[in-house]
Amino acid sequence: MVSRRVALTAAGVGIAGVAGAAAVGAAMMDEDRSPAAASPGDAVPFYGEHQAGIVTPAQDRLHFAAFDVITKDRAKLVEMLREWTAAAARMTQGRDAGLLGAVGGQAEAPPDDTGEALGLPASGLTLTIGFGRSLFRDAAGVDRFGIADRMPAALEPLPHFPGDALRPEISDGDLCVQACANDPQVAVHAIRNLARIGFGVVSIRYSQLGFGRTSSTSREQATARNLMGFKDGTRNMKLEDTDLLREQLWARASDGADWMAGGSYLVTRRIRMTVETWDRTPLAEQEAIFGRDKGEGAPLGQAKEFDEPDFAAKGADGEPVIAKEAHIRLAHPDFNNGAHLLRRGYNFVDGSDGLGRLDAGLFFIAYQRDPRKQFVPVQRSLARADILNEYIRHVSSGLWACPPGVTGDGDHWGRALFA
Amino acid sequence: MVSRRVALTAAGVGIAGVAGAAAVGAAMMDEDRSPAAASPGDAVPFYGEHQAGIVTPAQDRLHFAAFDVITKDRAKLVEMLREWTAAAARMTQGRDAGLLGAVGGQAEAPPDDTGEALGLPASGLTLTIGFGRSLFRDAAGVDRFGIADRMPAALEPLPHFPGDALRPEISDGDLCVQACANDPQVAVHAIRNLARIGFGVVSIRYSQLGFGRTSSTSREQATARNLMGFKDGTRNMKLEDTDLLREQLWARASDGADWMAGGSYLVTRRIRMTVETWDRTPLAEQEAIFGRDKGEGAPLGQAKEFDEPDFAAKGADGEPVIAKEAHIRLAHPDFNNGAHLLRRGYNFVDGSDGLGRLDAGLFFIAYQRDPRKQFVPVQRSLARADILNEYIRHVSSGLWACPPGVTGDGDHWGRALFA
Ligand code: HEM
Ligand code: HEM
Repeated sequence: MVSRRVALTAAGVGIAGVAGAAAVGAAMMDEDRSPAAASPGDAVPFYGEHQAGIVTPAQDRLHFAAFDVITKDRAKLVEMLREWTAAAARMTQGRDAGLLGAVGGQAEAPPDDTGEALGLPASGLTLTIGFGRSLFRDAAGVDRFGIADRMPAALEPLPHFPGDALRPEISDGDLCVQACANDPQVAVHAIRNLARIGFGVVSIRYSQLGFGRTSSTSREQATARNLMGFKDGTRNMKLEDTDLLREQLWARASDGADWMAGGSYLVTRRIRMTVETWDRTPLAEQEAIFGRDKGEGAPLGQAKEFDEPDFAAKGADGEPVIAKEAHIRLAHPDFNNGAHLLRRGYNFVDGSDGLGRLDAGLFFIAYQRDPRKQFVPVQRSLARADILNEYIRHVSSGLWACPPGVTGDGDHWGRALFA
Repeated sequence: MVSRRVALTAAGVGIAGVAGAAAVGAAMMDEDRSPAAASPGDAVPFYGEHQAGIVTPAQDRLHFAAFDVITKDRAKLVEMLREWTAAAARMTQGRDAGLLGAVGGQAEAPPDDTGEALGLPASGLTLTIGFGRSLFRDAAGVDRFGIADRMPAALEPLPHFPGDALRPEISDGDLCVQACANDPQVAVHAIRNLARIGFGVVSIRYSQLGFGRTSSTSREQATARNLMGFKDGTRNMKLEDTDLLREQLWARASDGADWMAGGSYLVTRRIRMTVETWDRTPLAEQEAIFGRDKGEGAPLGQAKEFDEPDFAAKGADGEPVIAKEAHIRLAHPDFNNGAHLLRRGYNFVDGSDGLGRLDAGLFFIAYQRDPRKQFVPVQRSLARADILNEYIRHVSSGLWACPPGVTGDGDHWGRALFA
């Protein structure tokens, strides 16, 4: 019987695996790539205090999907979440979605795995679930599944930001799953099998593929580049920032919703870039817009990528070296009441737009303890003044409560929420 | 100055590099992957008798773009093709698109490379150009660039096939470029820089990303799976089939258009799959539809993937073991006057379709010496009878004359055509 192999299981590329993987890294062709990506076949542990896919060193590919719940039956929804959890636990370890697998069942029955990942290793797959506001209370305020009183205050709808051009059909949703992996076929396979299992209970609202992780989430990873050609993720909250993560990434019971303790809030924004215009912008202007140089990624006025920006420094002309409205100034914690984000976005190109331009941009993903204190103020200051706005447009938005990790076999996604 | 590194140049993964690359393969994590993919950073030679990207062992990722020519000026078009060739020669070797690069120019000028591939190796990038019928003669029959008399007879429009649901806005085009690479960021970067260079001369008509090459084009590659979960590419024309390639892949001067000698004709079809329906189809039915088993990929009645199908064999019930309307029977050379194809397609998922389903399928790519004798008859028999048609829909179509390779520095894409 053919089944998916579990390649190099051992420790996996969990937090603990990063150092170990560095040795394997020597075998890779491209020394610029991170050690975490050096064993792209590895499995990331599924069970744990926190969900994987948040501080896990960012994998190279994304398949993100938002779902509408199409049943009114709470028991069916909970049962599906239980099945999803079992399938996720299997797939993240490089196994088929179901016990029988793509080719192990009865010939007269549809397989319980779709088969396109047969022979592929786990590929660092993580599956991270989030619950949207509409799961708790629909637009008319109806408590759909008897959990309205458990809705975290942090799920307060995001305000309208200047320049927002959100398309409702690709925004929000009842549930989301972020699938990250080093092989798109594996990420696609995972979402598709969850959709298959959820048949009759959920329906895909929108889905997004991404590549070339912008935003490393570990100091062991080299910083990748976004489609504006700049290193993205230099000053990100990273898994090594243990104190900061405790303070600004993980929700606590004392924040209001006890079932969210150890979870995190996720903001997703599909940000379209008009790359054609950007590509005709002078280098100096591009660098002024971000406040960093393009080659090295150093803050303007400094030499190296990880040098501290000096926001007070002035040039010979008396003007600030890092412009008043530079992206890295406006987004910096010093100017946002100390707010940090754990960014984990991906580049996307979804064909072209019918006007001769690539439909390209950044699928922005940010995790945090409380969006009201983190994403919202940062995005407010960006939306107000960022010169980058001339080249970008936010076209979709989502806000999700991502519960803590599943701790073992009896546990499942949403157990504490629906308890 | 930062610039793109040329990783592991040496021999490159050209035809000659395949065997050498096998040794490196041992360093890879996933022994199911092909040796050709074992050095994913390598450069593929750009210059040669034939264009790269046809028999080159299929890379893992695709960015395909079709362009409309928006100028009426023949000289401008030819000049752009010259610039494209220079940029393609550079980018396929892991260099910036332009001489100055992403960060090497004047600060007051837009960079001559967009920068998102800085630090990334060549990644097996190939760029393959094709000319569409409309470049020679527009819909009204006008000879746009004085080359109408050079249009090959093999560019005869494809007939309408039963079931075709083609969308004109994502079909045809004046020019196409197939970018294949082992890193999507590299493939995206290449198309984008060609579009940037072509500003004012061409405009992107449509573009398509793909992953998980279905159809290996070398016996050294393991067969990948399509999104129906089946191995795809088992019986493909492959680079080792030297005689067959001469007979059925490369055009000759004696075929009619002398500038096409050493070139090949490309058919592209975006084939949407209704994967949700497929996933509810019993395993036995899925296998009957293709005429192969799902796990191993062996022809029904045989044990191993590369065993010869026995189309005459009957089961105990007196019915053919490989059904009369099985895909591999209908598409087999024996039933199509000996016609072979070199398939080189990619899986795609372009979000969802607004009806709760993934917009997923196969971006079918096939090269051949003469579509009138190869793609057309095969597709006619498939369109007429293939049971697979219940699960697929052809939504875009393109037919392209891909000229021979560029032989050296003085030469450029389209030189012989416009001579
Ligand atoms: C297409 C849109 C965007 C692009 C291209 C972009 C790009 C960048 C780049 C190149 C950097 C500098 C390198 C780094 O430290 O990561 C950066 C920093 C940052 N960006 Fe963005 N960004 C975008 C949108 C956003 C949004 C919507 C937010 C949040 C509301 C955001 C928050 C940040 C933060 C917090 C930093 C780090 C600031 C610091 O501490 O120095 N960015 N971004
Ligand atoms: C979504 C659509 C399609 C799917 C999923 C599909 C899948 C497959 C599979 C699984 C095989 C068997 C393995 C192999 O030998 O590669 C195969 C064989 C083949 N297919 Fe398709 N195919 C599709 C469309 C087409 C089209 C449009 C054509 C050409 C008009 C085509 C031509 C062939 C040929 C020539 C073979 C090899 C037949 C032989 O010599 O045994 N296929 N295809």
